[in-house]
Amino acid sequence: MILTVTLNAALDVTYGISGELTPHRTHRVRTVATHAGGKGINVARVLHSLGDDVIATGLLGGRTGAQVQAQLDNEGVPNAFVAIESETRRTVVITDASGATGLWEAGPAVTAAEWAEFGRRFGELVQSAEVVVLSGSLPPGVPGAAYADLLGLARAAGIPAVLDTDGEALRFGIAARPDLVKPNAAELATLVGGTVDGVADSVRAGEIALALGAYAIAVSLGVAGVVLITAAGSLHASLPQPIAGNPTGAGDACTAALARTVGQPWRERLIDAVALSAASVPTPAAGMVDLATYRDIRGQISVEEC
Amino acid sequence: MILTVTLNAALDVTYGISGELTPHRTHRVRTVATHAGGKGINVARVLHSLGDDVIATGLLGGRTGAQVQAQLDNEGVPNAFVAIESETRRTVVITDASGATGLWEAGPAVTAAEWAEFGRRFGELVQSAEVVVLSGSLPPGVPGAAYADLLGLARAAGIPAVLDTDGEALRFGIAARPDLVKPNAAELATLVGGTVDGVADSVRAGEIALALGAYAIAVSLGVAGVVLITAAGSLHASLPQPIAGNPTGAGDACTAALARTVGQPWRERLIDAVALSAASVPTPAAGMVDLATYRDIRGQISVEEC
Repeated sequence: MILTVTLNAALDVTYGISGELTPHRTHRVRTVATHAGGKGINVARVLHSLGDDVIATGLLGGRTGAQVQAQLDNEGVPNAFVAIESETRRTVVITDASGATGLWEAGPAVTAAEWAEFGRRFGELVQSAEVVVLSGSLPPGVPGAAYADLLGLARAAGIPAVLDTDGEALRFGIAARPDLVKPNAAELATLVGGTVDGVADSVRAGEIALALGAYAIAVSLGVAGVVLITAAGSLHASLPQPIAGNPTGAGDACTAALARTVGQPWRERLIDAVALSAASVPTPAAGMVDLATYRDIRGQISVEEC
Repeated sequence: MILTVTLNAALDVTYGISGELTPHRTHRVRTVATHAGGKGINVARVLHSLGDDVIATGLLGGRTGAQVQAQLDNEGVPNAFVAIESETRRTVVITDASGATGLWEAGPAVTAAEWAEFGRRFGELVQSAEVVVLSGSLPPGVPGAAYADLLGLARAAGIPAVLDTDGEALRFGIAARPDLVKPNAAELATLVGGTVDGVADSVRAGEIALALGAYAIAVSLGVAGVVLITAAGSLHASLPQPIAGNPTGAGDACTAALARTVGQPWRERLIDAVALSAASVPTPAAGMVDLATYRDIRGQISVEEC
């Protein structure tokens, strides 16, 4: 079983409007779509759609938390969330004629007792896991070293872990020696300083990140593919040409591929990571993949040492 | 008792962000505030804060409807809503460094059976009302002539009615001969055609609106005050200078004043309408009024024939 952790789950709300979003005007919302969201939940939805044995855990609270839970139950995604008092956040994405504008709520205030309860639940769940995925931001109240704590529990149980987070949570988490960290270019740049633009920058920055504690770094570069950095060397996997569509959730599909292929050779894992990321692009929302694209595209992916 | 009707109630959500809203970027939401909303609910909250006997009715559904209900109960605003299956809408207002951007959901899909049930409930409630206030937009599924139907029931019970709506709902409603209609300049312009800018335009357009069926038209002109048009002549009430603050909800405060003063001389009612509108401006949200401002400002309001 793959265990995905989403400490800052969300109800993702997408508002479709006509024309262009214009600041300081009022807009009628033409369409409203809601999805269970948060990066770990997106990873779980992708894995579930591939038929993998997965459990989504994390924290859910209030009416919005109940809505997230109902959506997961509806889709049949196995889940075991810890209930909290404060309300789960929403994200609002406004799609207009030419793009998407995001509004990210910070998330619920989690108490120390709730965080301790989550630690206990995670400690139980991890015993029957083969891989753990720790994804996304931390809600207020959860300690900055939260992922380091969970990585310690996974390590004690002998379970490999994939970490996909940002900022302070990544800085603390990487020091706890995760098996694999999956930043995008901006997240990696924030971690090591400077800018990260393209394959050579990714390798340079990834080597610094290895020194901070990770065993392997997989940098997702959008249409430029994925760069892997380990102590044994670096690989770059990419598609001959980009796929048209909505890139939201491609990073979570990449993480899902890296989690489900633990134990396989890195070349195979990277091909899977690029293929599954690409398969998320033709779909309308994060956490979805197009299975036909996934199958068709694997043969087109090249992997080179770099 | 004053009965306010809100067929398209809302949970009003205000997102505070740093800097400026920039289309096609992602923004972190710094503050989240939620209020029970919808124009009739705003009117009821104003009347309740003045100590008036009021009941808010209308339609509420789903988890968002339950949140609106909980907020009203919390504030002690008496209410008697009819439950519907579909989810009550949200409005999202994004406040940035220099203004507010609104996103208005259309509202729940109301079934014919639910609308019939509301007609029965309204027919009962109106028996113990002294005034009825019909405010805001109609949700999908409610017939365009909804306000005309409710005005007919109020007329049959001998209860005066104030109508504050827009577009098709106003066009149908005004034909049912409401005692008073309170459009703003834009709503009046849409009703009679052409543009409405200032006092003279309001009088000209208001006379056309009288011919469409209303007994009286009170046009709210924001900082320029209120213009009343009746068959007996026209009056303009205004403040010597505008008040700084947030004008959202000033129109609903104006409607509340016009409802609570039914039976008083028009000059007094207009002074109250301008004073209560102004008293809403220093407050952070629609449905709130500053009682000290309300008291202090009444003596400064001038009323002139026009």
